[in-house]
Amino acid sequence: MTQHPALNQTRIKVGIVGGTGYTGVELLRLLAAHPQVELGIITSRGDAGTPVAAMFPNLRGRVDLAFTAPDTAALAACDVVFFATPNGIAMKEAAELLDKGVRVIDLAADFRIKDVPEWERWYGMPHASPALVAAAVYGLPEFNREAIRGARLVANPGCYPTAVQLGFMPLLRAGVVDAASLVADCKSGVSGAGRKAEVHTLLAEAADNFKAYAVPGHRHLPEIRQGLSAVAGKAVGLTFVPHLTPMIRGIHATLYARLTGTSVDLQVLYERTYAGEPFVDVMPAGSHPETRSVRGANTCRIAVHRPQGGDTVVVLSAIDNLVKGAAGQAIHNMNLMFGLPETTGIDGIALLP
Amino acid sequence: MTQHPALNQTRIKVGIVGGTGYTGVELLRLLAAHPQVELGIITSRGDAGTPVAAMFPNLRGRVDLAFTAPDTAALAACDVVFFATPNGIAMKEAAELLDKGVRVIDLAADFRIKDVPEWERWYGMPHASPALVAAAVYGLPEFNREAIRGARLVANPGCYPTAVQLGFMPLLRAGVVDAASLVADCKSGVSGAGRKAEVHTLLAEAADNFKAYAVPGHRHLPEIRQGLSAVAGKAVGLTFVPHLTPMIRGIHATLYARLTGTSVDLQVLYERTYAGEPFVDVMPAGSHPETRSVRGANTCRIAVHRPQGGDTVVVLSAIDNLVKGAAGQAIHNMNLMFGLPETTGIDGIALLP
Amino acid sequence: MTQHPALNQTRIKVGIVGGTGYTGVELLRLLAAHPQVELGIITSRGDAGTPVAAMFPNLRGRVDLAFTAPDTAALAACDVVFFATPNGIAMKEAAELLDKGVRVIDLAADFRIKDVPEWERWYGMPHASPALVAAAVYGLPEFNREAIRGARLVANPGCYPTAVQLGFMPLLRAGVVDAASLVADCKSGVSGAGRKAEVHTLLAEAADNFKAYAVPGHRHLPEIRQGLSAVAGKAVGLTFVPHLTPMIRGIHATLYARLTGTSVDLQVLYERTYAGEPFVDVMPAGSHPETRSVRGANTCRIAVHRPQGGDTVVVLSAIDNLVKGAAGQAIHNMNLMFGLPETTGIDGIALLP
Amino acid sequence: MTQHPALNQTRIKVGIVGGTGYTGVELLRLLAAHPQVELGIITSRGDAGTPVAAMFPNLRGRVDLAFTAPDTAALAACDVVFFATPNGIAMKEAAELLDKGVRVIDLAADFRIKDVPEWERWYGMPHASPALVAAAVYGLPEFNREAIRGARLVANPGCYPTAVQLGFMPLLRAGVVDAASLVADCKSGVSGAGRKAEVHTLLAEAADNFKAYAVPGHRHLPEIRQGLSAVAGKAVGLTFVPHLTPMIRGIHATLYARLTGTSVDLQVLYERTYAGEPFVDVMPAGSHPETRSVRGANTCRIAVHRPQGGDTVVVLSAIDNLVKGAAGQAIHNMNLMFGLPETTGIDGIALLP
Repeated sequence: MTQHPALNQTRIKVGIVGGTGYTGVELLRLLAAHPQVELGIITSRGDAGTPVAAMFPNLRGRVDLAFTAPDTAALAACDVVFFATPNGIAMKEAAELLDKGVRVIDLAADFRIKDVPEWERWYGMPHASPALVAAAVYGLPEFNREAIRGARLVANPGCYPTAVQLGFMPLLRAGVVDAASLVADCKSGVSGAGRKAEVHTLLAEAADNFKAYAVPGHRHLPEIRQGLSAVAGKAVGLTFVPHLTPMIRGIHATLYARLTGTSVDLQVLYERTYAGEPFVDVMPAGSHPETRSVRGANTCRIAVHRPQGGDTVVVLSAIDNLVKGAAGQAIHNMNLMFGLPETTGIDGIALLP
Repeated sequence: MTQHPALNQTRIKVGIVGGTGYTGVELLRLLAAHPQVELGIITSRGDAGTPVAAMFPNLRGRVDLAFTAPDTAALAACDVVFFATPNGIAMKEAAELLDKGVRVIDLAADFRIKDVPEWERWYGMPHASPALVAAAVYGLPEFNREAIRGARLVANPGCYPTAVQLGFMPLLRAGVVDAASLVADCKSGVSGAGRKAEVHTLLAEAADNFKAYAVPGHRHLPEIRQGLSAVAGKAVGLTFVPHLTPMIRGIHATLYARLTGTSVDLQVLYERTYAGEPFVDVMPAGSHPETRSVRGANTCRIAVHRPQGGDTVVVLSAIDNLVKGAAGQAIHNMNLMFGLPETTGIDGIALLP
Repeated sequence: MTQHPALNQTRIKVGIVGGTGYTGVELLRLLAAHPQVELGIITSRGDAGTPVAAMFPNLRGRVDLAFTAPDTAALAACDVVFFATPNGIAMKEAAELLDKGVRVIDLAADFRIKDVPEWERWYGMPHASPALVAAAVYGLPEFNREAIRGARLVANPGCYPTAVQLGFMPLLRAGVVDAASLVADCKSGVSGAGRKAEVHTLLAEAADNFKAYAVPGHRHLPEIRQGLSAVAGKAVGLTFVPHLTPMIRGIHATLYARLTGTSVDLQVLYERTYAGEPFVDVMPAGSHPETRSVRGANTCRIAVHRPQGGDTVVVLSAIDNLVKGAAGQAIHNMNLMFGLPETTGIDGIALLP
Repeated sequence: MTQHPALNQTRIKVGIVGGTGYTGVELLRLLAAHPQVELGIITSRGDAGTPVAAMFPNLRGRVDLAFTAPDTAALAACDVVFFATPNGIAMKEAAELLDKGVRVIDLAADFRIKDVPEWERWYGMPHASPALVAAAVYGLPEFNREAIRGARLVANPGCYPTAVQLGFMPLLRAGVVDAASLVADCKSGVSGAGRKAEVHTLLAEAADNFKAYAVPGHRHLPEIRQGLSAVAGKAVGLTFVPHLTPMIRGIHATLYARLTGTSVDLQVLYERTYAGEPFVDVMPAGSHPETRSVRGANTCRIAVHRPQGGDTVVVLSAIDNLVKGAAGQAIHNMNLMFGLPETTGIDGIALLP
């Protein structure tokens, strides 16, 4: 099978650190077809020497690289490096690359939360480079586009935070809801738990089953709270309950807020907020977005409801956790950082059925 | 294969009207193994003549009946008749059976809502027997046990209403939450949509997918509101959002309410409310009930949380929509009506994995 | 969201008849991103007036067409028309389009079987245009490439026949197995049954379940037999058993044949047969292709085994039934008919996980 | 919730070694409701101290035991001990229990294969007690009932071997097929892989996917071959290909054999073979058994076909791998060993849908 035809343009040389998880294979799927990218290196301490396509057979004939042992010199020869590593790696390794002029996009949580002690509480480890936290730009393009363009270090948002923030932000920016009592009831496919051998995500455990988890507290709570509070201009009160649903990909956030009396046309508010956004689709009034309608696509589909004409607004927000919730958004950020058209390489149409 | 051994006791002669749906086959599965029941007749206009076990091969060797055309005389010879029909049938046919001394348990919605005009709005048809609505007893045993014992006509609760009411009622009866702003975010397996040929519930449409539906209004809303308002002693405000999740059986209700300042030990409140109840399991503090833990069982498992010590209480309530949410609860009602031990025939253990 | 950028080349104007099924939406997904195609018209008698993207939300922002009533004049203005209709439609409507110089690719079965009485037996209707059957070219590019290039009417192969023929043909062409006793044990995802409201393909029926069907005889049997016999140079004996497996997309064919004593390096035979083929991937010896490794891709992955060194060869062949088994292969045929590079528009990478 | 009411009869005291896997929880589900059983002890080295119901919430209120550390004295106080351990444990620990008069049923593979060197090749370890292999009785009741009644040590058959042997044995015993070229194409749900944390059985890997595995050789091959050869009276030739299908429970074996010319009424042959068998259901001619029709039940459903009237017979055989393929069959063996009615405690009806 043939490689994507090379275009007659300079290519961005890309490195990936830690590409053996689902975020990694999804980055590879998208970058292998990205017309402006040259895949330079992909590292994995545990799988060095294994051809990428031996682990991920969908990439056979399309990605010829093998995983290599971590190699700072080789990574430093890249224009941009994606960290698709567990939490706590990028904070130790990014500085050296940044110093050598490499741009860095971290798909883990190391640089997402500005309040370092708060981060340390939720992630259970001391932070290795608090200074970089301050320098990092939060990579939610719809609300941070200009800062991302100039960024050297981007903190790619979490999957739940992407779906929840895009859903709530129009309401909070417009100041039409009670910011003190937000509810985010979120449902995630199992790939959100990563490609780790664990009992509770076995098919025989997670199929034909539904459950909430981490109700007492989930690490994405402070990240969402930080983003929403910034837009609201004050601390928000948020109850966030994640659930595991028996599907592979997809997040569906069902968001509840209390209207504060201001008369507002919610449909117009959402359509205006996201007018011109290539990756947010405000659906017609009365719609119910399905996660499969964004399967494999870098799209967030949103619908806004006011059931029974009451004072509760219900927002439905659906993304593919591995694309708009991870790899696709990371490439969107890369496109912005390198001045490419925003949709380059991430305009694939969702696979339905 | 052999029939369940007959016990040396009088048996209740049971008829089923409309047994070709999932509620019907589940009634048959449970009744065929019920030691005090004799299955007398099962009717289906469309499938008269078809052996039940030809449609439902799990019943081969266990149910020898064939579907017969509707036959009031034969039904009148039963002690109790279950209506597993679409909405609008039982309200036309129950009166004649009741007049002949047969007890009736309707698994559809015809007798659930006391406010007949409200029922007519939601169900889009005139009610054929408003007088029976007044006479019917709502069959939620945990909150209506004594009335059920003496009932001649039982309105078996809907699946969502069972999960939501059992979850919210302790809070409302204790008066510790703001009854004006309840949120019920509910997720159902696909069998809840019934055994009807429809595109949106095909495996190729509903698998690996998640969506909300009927956000503007669902027929179970007035039923839930009626039950919660009765317990609260005042009209409640409820936002109810149902979702379709890619599994066969199970409902998971995630319930949100605002505590009103009263100091209350939520765990104790729930444990006391359901102490001695054979079919409600209050799990230890910190638990997350899974729908599979009740798959095939007549159990509602509940956990109560107060995330981050805030003023929002989160209740998790899981049932099998076809058992505690339909056929199992109907048999529980039958056991009560006939003075049998409550757990007779419905004490099967959930199938896990 | 933006349309795929127009390339500076003449485009092929495409029409689709009957685009409301899974083959239709998959054609649309692929054609909407095909750089040399202009979607001209898509017809549906039942859904005329409905925007395509209202039925298939994955196409929102990418396909602006609405379904229109069948309209021969408008179709005649196309360069090529795909029939994604039920069996029995194209045989009535293709002739008029062909007469007007339009090329036709039928994704149904109307032109696949050269023996018209045989076709009529299996499909239960008289054939409306036997002359076109003779003229039609069977669109399996790997074995019919040159004829397809010059074809005006292509019969696109069935999904099972694609997987089975690509798997068996190297053995039969080499004459190394007993052609009289072939076994094809095939497993299909549920989308193969189409987007029709039927009980047996509901999620609640087909999930967590596995069954064979049509063991006495399936319509794809004569199609497979015809293709294999042509390659073998004699009538083959084939037992073909299809099964329904609880997944959305994918066919896995497990093929059994008895080696006839000739010494042969099976791995080399397969690699040579498919060397240079862009859409057949012969995996390394010892491999087990997974259907997900071709999910959404126009690829057939094949592995060949000789268990325990015995005289039975086992071939494993995996495709996406909607892509290589339908829409993707149809576009491959179109590319050949119009002299485009074969992989144009169908080089997407499979979605894994 | 209440315990199953004690019957007024002597109970069999049961111990389980290694109950933390799927075979263990299924034994517990069935034994907890078995009217003649008293659960005495369940051991687990790794989870000693954990209440069984904390690991398996379906057992809350029904099993009060906690896992205990292995304890030969306590086990020796039981009437029968089930080993639900990995391969290689029972062969070390059974002898001591047998010496103390305890009966032993091993659900692993330690005593299934009479040819010890063959066992050692396939299982990759030396056998610790070859003498017990000779003494052990293979626990397939339909073909070994009398020996099981008198057994002190039973080797419970594997899941694939149960489905394949029950399907093939009537043909081989009647001598109507070519025993040299049998094909068993088998499909298993994921619970067959056990409750072990492994990547390839994660939901995100195994859902919406289908693949063969172990085509070069699977450990159940020698076990099946041994059983079939004994019935055939000569060594059989068998190609056995297992597949992983995205469901939780169930095995479907599709079996192919060549008829040898003898005229035989296959339907009558199967019905006669299994007449009176409580756990084998020969379905009517033309049937296709579904795995869900035996979900949770100790039943094997079989259909026999002769497609197109040719000389290939196709047998379809479906079981629940955890019940008839493991725990249910083990209890059937226990019932036989203790003189109970065979169906006691294992007459539950399959859960459908």
